[in-house]
Amino acid sequence: MKEPDICDIREAHERIRRHIHRTPVFTCETLNRMCGAELFFKCENFQKVGAFKIRGASNAVFSLTREEASNGVATHSSGNHAAALALAARWREIQAYVVMPENAPGVKKKAVADYGAEIIFCRPTLEAREKTLADVMERTGAVMVHPYNDYRVITGQGTAALELCEDVPNLDLVVAPVGGGGLLSGTALSVHALSPGTKVVAAEPQNADDAFQSLKAGHVIPVKEPNTVADGLRTSLGDKTFSIIRKEVETIIPVSEESIVDAMRMIWERMKIIVEPSSSVTLGAIKTEPGFFAGKRVGIILSGGNVDLASLPFS
Amino acid sequence: MKEPDICDIREAHERIRRHIHRTPVFTCETLNRMCGAELFFKCENFQKVGAFKIRGASNAVFSLTREEASNGVATHSSGNHAAALALAARWREIQAYVVMPENAPGVKKKAVADYGAEIIFCRPTLEAREKTLADVMERTGAVMVHPYNDYRVITGQGTAALELCEDVPNLDLVVAPVGGGGLLSGTALSVHALSPGTKVVAAEPQNADDAFQSLKAGHVIPVKEPNTVADGLRTSLGDKTFSIIRKEVETIIPVSEESIVDAMRMIWERMKIIVEPSSSVTLGAIKTEPGFFAGKRVGIILSGGNVDLASLPFS
Repeated sequence: MKEPDICDIREAHERIRRHIHRTPVFTCETLNRMCGAELFFKCENFQKVGAFKIRGASNAVFSLTREEASNGVATHSSGNHAAALALAARWREIQAYVVMPENAPGVKKKAVADYGAEIIFCRPTLEAREKTLADVMERTGAVMVHPYNDYRVITGQGTAALELCEDVPNLDLVVAPVGGGGLLSGTALSVHALSPGTKVVAAEPQNADDAFQSLKAGHVIPVKEPNTVADGLRTSLGDKTFSIIRKEVETIIPVSEESIVDAMRMIWERMKIIVEPSSSVTLGAIKTEPGFFAGKRVGIILSGGNVDLASLPFS
Repeated sequence: MKEPDICDIREAHERIRRHIHRTPVFTCETLNRMCGAELFFKCENFQKVGAFKIRGASNAVFSLTREEASNGVATHSSGNHAAALALAARWREIQAYVVMPENAPGVKKKAVADYGAEIIFCRPTLEAREKTLADVMERTGAVMVHPYNDYRVITGQGTAALELCEDVPNLDLVVAPVGGGGLLSGTALSVHALSPGTKVVAAEPQNADDAFQSLKAGHVIPVKEPNTVADGLRTSLGDKTFSIIRKEVETIIPVSEESIVDAMRMIWERMKIIVEPSSSVTLGAIKTEPGFFAGKRVGIILSGGNVDLASLPFS
């Protein structure tokens, strides 16, 4: 299966655009002044399910033939991808099966159940998840939709940067967060096709820096005990996302926990919008390496806004 | 001095429009579903200084003749109006003098000082504030700009609803919060001139329901010991705002503290934007009297987004 290109991303956009929001691009004079750069924030926190994940999930679901779709879709995830897949399946009127660790937060279980997915609980280990998912697929015949290591998902996630490039020409840099790499690889494919002079940079929590280590080593190094407030970025690269990222991404900037939270506070206080730590890592990267961004026009993907208001990281 | 009309509000808009943001109108399908109405949120939380107050303050400042402006402007306030007046004065390159109680939060003192205003501290009583302000005006010759009981301020605040009516035709209702009544009276003047069939409704904290009591009594009844999380709505109506509101406003809905906080949480969680309790009282009113709003097209003025992230009311 060949790596996707901009034609695949354009097709994905045509496929999903009437289901999703075309999210706005925000600017903030105060943050421009504080960073010495011109920042353009693509607000995927305003997207359906509160995150870009609906782009990849809905592209995967609507890519299926009628026969493939007939037995539903399945995934293991306790985060935004699970809710996104559940919603996309509801749009297509097929069943979604979501394998979740039994200790997942109640609010996340509820979101997935509210979208009509069947939740199958398992012990909170990677082995239990994979075994349970295999059982579910065996039992139901559902199609697996991986959270990121899947070309249908990668091209779907790339549609956010496609819209950003359409709305804001002549960017010098685009910054995206990296966890499993679905958003980052899709972003890089879009940006380099639509705006060849623009460089793509990744922002990653220092405490879950597997992408940084993997690029250095030249092969995928899974993350070990990721201890970061950016709960969406605790996953490791897959082989498909790694292969795109090593070719297309300029550099990866590791960001401290303190910088992630400081940047989150800056966005909340100055822009009056709610983003999750997995999003603010991007602004954290700019504050960490100011010289790299000085005087530049910088696109930033704010990936999502799902936070638990009862346990915020501000002190 | 005659009461202002839509011509005055249009003039105000021409005067201030290149200084302020034309804030967007947001919609949210989930909240529409939860409320059984079609809601259009005018997002003044995205306005300069984080609140609509810059509209009235800048209209007042730019209305002054060069001679009037030469000695600067003065007010007493510890809230958004003080920051707004300070910024508007900086735009016009004149001095602002702000009388503040010595126990005002540090973050508010800092915001006002950062905009270049001179702060004069006083004891935290109304008498001390008024005496200190009189002394400042005597010493400096500065022009007083009252936070709400001033026609230049009222017409400035009315420009938010003017933009809302331009952007969203055929509203059945517009809901605005009421504290001192500057925003509410300006909103009512704009809405009734531009959209005669649209009714204007006020939302007020039950624990600071002086506007509700004043309308019932037929004269201004000052608020006593307002104990509400909506810190922007603890003030009493003035004679100018009362006179407009009694003619132009359909009804005032008192909202409980619990409803204000619940509505704030709904807006944060569902819309991913930050609003202060003085804004969410509007959605609280809709949840309090659902029958009144059912099936209607409802404009909502989200007045501001200045909150202290270190002390949020969510539990």
